[in-house]
Amino acid sequence: MVRVMIPSFNIARIPNIIFGIGKLNDLFNLIPKFGKNILIITGGKSLKSSGEWDKIAENLDKLLITYSQVSISGEPSPSMVDKYATKFRGKNIDLIVGIGGGSVIDAGKAISAMIPKRYSIKEYLEGVGTKTYDGEKISYIAIPTASGTGSEATKNAVISKIGPEGFKKSLRHDNLVPDFAIIDPELMISCPQSVTAACGMDAFTQLLEAYVSPKGNPMTDALALSGIKYMKDNIIPACSNGASDVKVRAAMAYGSLMSGITLANAGLGVIHGFASPIGGFFNIPHGVICGTLLAEATKMNIEMLKKKGPSGKLGLKKHADIGALFYDGEPVKKDNILKYCDILIITLQKWTDQLNIDRLGKYGINISDVDKIVAKTGLKNNPVELSKEDIKSILINRI
Amino acid sequence: MVRVMIPSFNIARIPNIIFGIGKLNDLFNLIPKFGKNILIITGGKSLKSSGEWDKIAENLDKLLITYSQVSISGEPSPSMVDKYATKFRGKNIDLIVGIGGGSVIDAGKAISAMIPKRYSIKEYLEGVGTKTYDGEKISYIAIPTASGTGSEATKNAVISKIGPEGFKKSLRHDNLVPDFAIIDPELMISCPQSVTAACGMDAFTQLLEAYVSPKGNPMTDALALSGIKYMKDNIIPACSNGASDVKVRAAMAYGSLMSGITLANAGLGVIHGFASPIGGFFNIPHGVICGTLLAEATKMNIEMLKKKGPSGKLGLKKHADIGALFYDGEPVKKDNILKYCDILIITLQKWTDQLNIDRLGKYGINISDVDKIVAKTGLKNNPVELSKEDIKSILINRI
Repeated sequence: MVRVMIPSFNIARIPNIIFGIGKLNDLFNLIPKFGKNILIITGGKSLKSSGEWDKIAENLDKLLITYSQVSISGEPSPSMVDKYATKFRGKNIDLIVGIGGGSVIDAGKAISAMIPKRYSIKEYLEGVGTKTYDGEKISYIAIPTASGTGSEATKNAVISKIGPEGFKKSLRHDNLVPDFAIIDPELMISCPQSVTAACGMDAFTQLLEAYVSPKGNPMTDALALSGIKYMKDNIIPACSNGASDVKVRAAMAYGSLMSGITLANAGLGVIHGFASPIGGFFNIPHGVICGTLLAEATKMNIEMLKKKGPSGKLGLKKHADIGALFYDGEPVKKDNILKYCDILIITLQKWTDQLNIDRLGKYGINISDVDKIVAKTGLKNNPVELSKEDIKSILINRI
Repeated sequence: MVRVMIPSFNIARIPNIIFGIGKLNDLFNLIPKFGKNILIITGGKSLKSSGEWDKIAENLDKLLITYSQVSISGEPSPSMVDKYATKFRGKNIDLIVGIGGGSVIDAGKAISAMIPKRYSIKEYLEGVGTKTYDGEKISYIAIPTASGTGSEATKNAVISKIGPEGFKKSLRHDNLVPDFAIIDPELMISCPQSVTAACGMDAFTQLLEAYVSPKGNPMTDALALSGIKYMKDNIIPACSNGASDVKVRAAMAYGSLMSGITLANAGLGVIHGFASPIGGFFNIPHGVICGTLLAEATKMNIEMLKKKGPSGKLGLKKHADIGALFYDGEPVKKDNILKYCDILIITLQKWTDQLNIDRLGKYGINISDVDKIVAKTGLKNNPVELSKEDIKSILINRI
């Protein structure tokens, strides 16, 4: 019987969502509603090599749309965003369309926000600048080609400066939720195995962290579990014999979309706490950082929740809810919570192996970097307090 | 294992949601963001008698906000909407706030849409007028005081003209989703028993119809089941010994909110198909129409799905998913689907009795009205085809 108090919660903007096979075509119905002069941001090569770009260009020509196209590679940096914001400022851009992985979607978001501004994006980044971004932006349509960050549904753009003084920080505002998110699973078929694996683990991390977050609410809980249900049976096939099965890609894309909606409204935990300093100091794909730490951090959280006694019960129950989905058996009850927590940990460990998620050592991180990383790792909305020693131990186990 | 194809789907706008005890106060932080000149639409008396109105007026005075206040009673009619749209046209209203039951929220929605227009709302109603409403409107904040229609999250306003030539039709546009929905369970404590019962049954009907709708998708499914989970144990208490328990009211308010989001994106079934002609011809509260037909129509749908053989299986499974929530037992499997369908029907019948939901005869409907109603009853997104005879039989059983 559900007679607990629903906590106060806010749900901010959710993009207009257009989901389904072939839905990229809806873009051409949408564009004319925004105007005649658009900027398209894409990734490096895959869109062009897959032939999708030619199709897009042809359709834009038919509509007599004036467009500029910019290819970016790697995660967006302040200088990249500033360069394009400056280039297109005053050019009367009516709409920006970002088609690509998480980096491309974030770059588009940041550029759409910075074109109307006068200063460098650094001035507006959380924990970096001193100015408050007011939400003024150019309309933005996000079209992901990888199932990972869920950025098509979030209100932040992650901007990275890599190096000893590096950072990975967000430009954040409710208005940065894209106006439309078009999720077409066909666009993900050509996403390579290693990217699919890392992005998939990132999305799953986001769903898990949002679900166990104390900031969660019934609505984010329902959406997170729904995303997990679709993702759990498809993450391994998406990286192996199901890579070209559009059903598998659709399930992954749906999970990723749910992860964006839920993280934006329920927050994340320690794994994403690590992602910020590690990604700032080292050139490691965000998905690899999350994926490699997922099982280890979940194990630590569950251990610490067990130690807390009665006050840890809700957190354990929530981890068990996810574990129970892998077992498809009886509902979570008092006497099977720990069993389902174990199932969750074991499954995540198995995925890490099966998906060949790299250890951090492969990217040049070694034991002498640990203190520097741990010092800058925040807990965010982790379901349980962790000491610096606990955080250190998670990290060391994945070097 | 989830390896089915996720169907194509769209999710339109969802309001910015502010949910929680005491959150009415957030209204006063929001108003200044929209402007200095606002129109407040309220219901008849309850807001004033509860003392809430004095609090609101005091806060507006403190903020130096200029406001007009309009009280409405009954479901909004074309002449009511036209009257207020004309009165406030050209008065530079920056924001409309609707605080009340579903009728008030819908009236506010319609007035916010019609102030910028020149013609009667009749011209823009689905199936009545010939003009297309383009979505231009004044910003709108919806604050429900009853847990029923979910109108705070929907994109339509239901407008009624009662009588022999009567209708109950919608003004509909994605832009009509309120800009903000503030859901404060404290405002529902004073909602009387009969209204709570009828509205609760309406919201439950919406959740059920959206969940079994062929237009549903994983996202609306997750939200509908989440709403049902909270509502199922609280609908009876909300109308009896739990009426002043804010936990109970919060669960009902949450269910109602989910019903609005899901119906807007997955559609409704035959029960709401009935609501349009019955509500047009007779002066019956919308919630009573839905509540009184809920068990009977669900029973008919399940019977007809059984007759369909393999093609009825998915529909039966979905009804069973809801039935299983009442039993809290093992997951839905092939061999218990019919058992759970029965549990659903029996529960809905029990609720109808326990909540004293009136039969339609009480409002003057008799057997000679049946043909006229059935002729105008549409199936909407009902999970199974029903013949006119089937529809007739549902209706006759509740006269």
